[in-house]
Amino acid sequence: MVDILELHRTVKLLVFWSLICLVALSTVEARIRHYKWEVKYEYKSPDCFQKLVTTINGGTPGPTILAQQGDTIVVELKNSLLTENIAIHWHGIRQIGTPWSDGTEGVTQCPILPGDTFKYKFIVDRAGTFLYHGHYGMQREAGLYGSIIVSLPDGVSEPFAYDNERSIILNDWFHKSTYEEATGLSSIPFVWVGEPQSLLINGRGRYNCSLLSNPSLEACNVTNPECSPYILTVIPGKTYRLRIGSLTSLSALSFQIEGHNFTVVEADGHYVEPFVTKNLYIYSGETYSILVKANQNPSRNYWMTSNVVGRKPGTPTGLAILNYYPTHFRKSPPTVPTTGPLWNDTAPRLAQSLAIKALQSSIHTPPLTSDKTIVLLNTQNKIDGVAKNVNATSSNGLYRLKFNSTVDVVLQNANTMSVNNSETHPWHLHGHDFWVLGYGTGKFDVTKDVGKYNLANPIMKNTVPVHPYGWTALRFRADNPGVWAFHCHIESHFYMGMGVVFESGVEKVGMLPSSVMGCGETKGFHRP
Amino acid sequence: MVDILELHRTVKLLVFWSLICLVALSTVEARIRHYKWEVKYEYKSPDCFQKLVTTINGGTPGPTILAQQGDTIVVELKNSLLTENIAIHWHGIRQIGTPWSDGTEGVTQCPILPGDTFKYKFIVDRAGTFLYHGHYGMQREAGLYGSIIVSLPDGVSEPFAYDNERSIILNDWFHKSTYEEATGLSSIPFVWVGEPQSLLINGRGRYNCSLLSNPSLEACNVTNPECSPYILTVIPGKTYRLRIGSLTSLSALSFQIEGHNFTVVEADGHYVEPFVTKNLYIYSGETYSILVKANQNPSRNYWMTSNVVGRKPGTPTGLAILNYYPTHFRKSPPTVPTTGPLWNDTAPRLAQSLAIKALQSSIHTPPLTSDKTIVLLNTQNKIDGVAKNVNATSSNGLYRLKFNSTVDVVLQNANTMSVNNSETHPWHLHGHDFWVLGYGTGKFDVTKDVGKYNLANPIMKNTVPVHPYGWTALRFRADNPGVWAFHCHIESHFYMGMGVVFESGVEKVGMLPSSVMGCGETKGFHRP
Repeated sequence: MVDILELHRTVKLLVFWSLICLVALSTVEARIRHYKWEVKYEYKSPDCFQKLVTTINGGTPGPTILAQQGDTIVVELKNSLLTENIAIHWHGIRQIGTPWSDGTEGVTQCPILPGDTFKYKFIVDRAGTFLYHGHYGMQREAGLYGSIIVSLPDGVSEPFAYDNERSIILNDWFHKSTYEEATGLSSIPFVWVGEPQSLLINGRGRYNCSLLSNPSLEACNVTNPECSPYILTVIPGKTYRLRIGSLTSLSALSFQIEGHNFTVVEADGHYVEPFVTKNLYIYSGETYSILVKANQNPSRNYWMTSNVVGRKPGTPTGLAILNYYPTHFRKSPPTVPTTGPLWNDTAPRLAQSLAIKALQSSIHTPPLTSDKTIVLLNTQNKIDGVAKNVNATSSNGLYRLKFNSTVDVVLQNANTMSVNNSETHPWHLHGHDFWVLGYGTGKFDVTKDVGKYNLANPIMKNTVPVHPYGWTALRFRADNPGVWAFHCHIESHFYMGMGVVFESGVEKVGMLPSSVMGCGETKGFHRP
Repeated sequence: MVDILELHRTVKLLVFWSLICLVALSTVEARIRHYKWEVKYEYKSPDCFQKLVTTINGGTPGPTILAQQGDTIVVELKNSLLTENIAIHWHGIRQIGTPWSDGTEGVTQCPILPGDTFKYKFIVDRAGTFLYHGHYGMQREAGLYGSIIVSLPDGVSEPFAYDNERSIILNDWFHKSTYEEATGLSSIPFVWVGEPQSLLINGRGRYNCSLLSNPSLEACNVTNPECSPYILTVIPGKTYRLRIGSLTSLSALSFQIEGHNFTVVEADGHYVEPFVTKNLYIYSGETYSILVKANQNPSRNYWMTSNVVGRKPGTPTGLAILNYYPTHFRKSPPTVPTTGPLWNDTAPRLAQSLAIKALQSSIHTPPLTSDKTIVLLNTQNKIDGVAKNVNATSSNGLYRLKFNSTVDVVLQNANTMSVNNSETHPWHLHGHDFWVLGYGTGKFDVTKDVGKYNLANPIMKNTVPVHPYGWTALRFRADNPGVWAFHCHIESHFYMGMGVVFESGVEKVGMLPSSVMGCGETKGFHRP
């Protein structure tokens, strides 16, 4: 009896291995990449300070999705939170044909209830560097985020050369819970959580526990291995592609590698006409690929740093280590980490935005004219709150766009509630990439500025900043049937209402899967 | 135009006032009591320590439901939490004919999603003192609770006299969030949150902020009016009915009023053969009415106190003030509050349990025999955790009971995971009251103990304690069609699985309202 059972097991194993081999051999064809994820609360100490975070399969950031262009991704997401629903957005994936898998709670789906398993299924139709994150309440900030790396089809090469690649997610980190932050934002008067305590690089930071009155009571411990810095080991002479994404809740960042210039080659999954820089400005929701050559003195290590820009920093520099093999990875760089560029110098940030153009050999030219222009004034005033703004308007924020029409959006920045202060807002569009037609300072002038649009080689992106007191113009084709969010990617701004919804061609979507329905207006339309 | 509008308004107001008068005049008939509640997160300082709590209409405890026997209660509950669902249980209300309004998430309804409004509608068919509280995750402990007071029909008198009445809810209070506590409970190895920081009386306590290393940083402030003690003002010579309920998460309590004996007259909505005592032992989920006469020196005030029993106390005494008019209510009693009875002396607690019998003139005699006996061994071992217990069994915990059959349950206490330690477990039955047939010490012996059951004048209750190393026997008629939870009312014990479900007569329930469905097994059966 035992023997038969063991025989069965052996046969099963053989079948299993045969399947593995089958999958391994069929790399030419588009594959289905199947992930099983479980979302839970766990205590973690990403920056040495222990707090409750939301993890995927035990980690924050969650697992990296590695796929090849054309693959189908299936994520079976089990919600093991106690009483809290979830939804996950696949940031930069256009969801062509699967708008219900966009993961935007309240826009494309009902949230996933505790105990339920929801299946996200979508095709990654373009190679590039993408992200995923919670898109419900402020769950991204609670730890629910990660990377999606899509490689080119076999036999197709990138238009640049490198020996190896790594991915890096930048983030900022608060010690208070997202519930606390959101409750403050909803209070009248408004209570602000304050600046982030740490900047994380690949989920790791280092808070100075001695700032706490009683670190042991607060469970802050700098010897906790969870808060050791991220280490990127390089071999001297080799060139590395670093895929860098930012999912900060609040902070605009500058990223730099001590002693190394690097070349920007990709932005939001589109090739960039390469340019060399010593720092990368990156805004929440953006991704870039940079090429960095390990061409410095290999007998020491170097700091990789992230710094807050665009807002008076109250957060120390985020640190990681570029480790030159065979120098020991624990050897601290002999230098003091740089503090990065001046936080309030907008000029180099605008200059870098302007420098990002489509790679000459892969330009997708935009339509030369648009059918409609939407101007969105980026104020930071509450309409129903204490600080009233007579210029602000209130609506349901839903724009119905003619299918296949060309739409321009002009993001116009303004003052915040404080005098002489204007902040950076990174706007992210779901379901589409857009052409970035131009940036300017001051008030957008339709008679002068439209004529200066870059229609020759604009980069396509899904996230773009509008700089302090400036404007940003973008164009997109409303060619993806569905209902799509367009919003400031700063978590608290989006929470406060800084976003709209574009609807186009919903009649082409067909029957929605019942799994996305059963709440709000769809309550009662839930069919088996 | 304006005049016409104003006329319309006047007419509307008149109609409104006529309706009010109509309602006021029709007190003889059963009424519909309509409540609109909104559940939100808010910062509160119930015991001086500020933390995020869950409020109903801005308060914790929430509004008291005041009704008359036979009334229909309608609570329109709006969930304004961020990402968290809710469900509210009407504790002690049998929900005859409305089992779907019992508010037990996962048993009688799907949870109420953020943004949704759910309508609870049920009849309060018996006069008495009842409770309500969150019944999803650990939301009760987060602040979601309150009182239901049901008065007798007009013309019917209580079998005891009093001049006035007040209600008091006792609770214990943790500074950590329920998420943190639950995450600890789910961890392997198990992490315990520790003893409660405070005992609350009507939502008010007083934590010693100086125990914190940095009270200002922790937002702990003893001058905050929110943490002033509850004050019960009495007029000398008058008799007061105090309706006392306990909704502690963990603690068994003793309640006493300095210098005053009192008479116990009601338990869980049933009249008690009156007995005089100087302290009331009360377990989570129980309610009592006591009569107290203001017959002491009226030139001073007196402490009302609650103390932890049955578990080594790590929580200071809960304090409120009995204020004799016209002594100023702010005048502190001249005495040091008593520390209450010995925490580890089970004998007087068992004696009080045995003293609680049905009032002679209102005995509902139980069936003399039962059709089925269920023995539930109260261990505190995890089956899947690190501490394994070979005696524990695992099942779905669902008991199908023949409709209208008589069921006995014997709750048998045992050791906890610690040696020489046994705790008190208050068990609460939904949808029914049961007769309390007996309490004993040691191991229940079916051949000897059944014969000693009190079938003459057992009290009916919905919640009953099983004392350390003892047993408790109860009997009920499975005469209420539905699916009903029966569980230990200690929040963390229930969370860890200390509960079962009784199903009986579900074929008589008929069509469920679609509003309770749409999750778990009912997903896809949600019809408009």
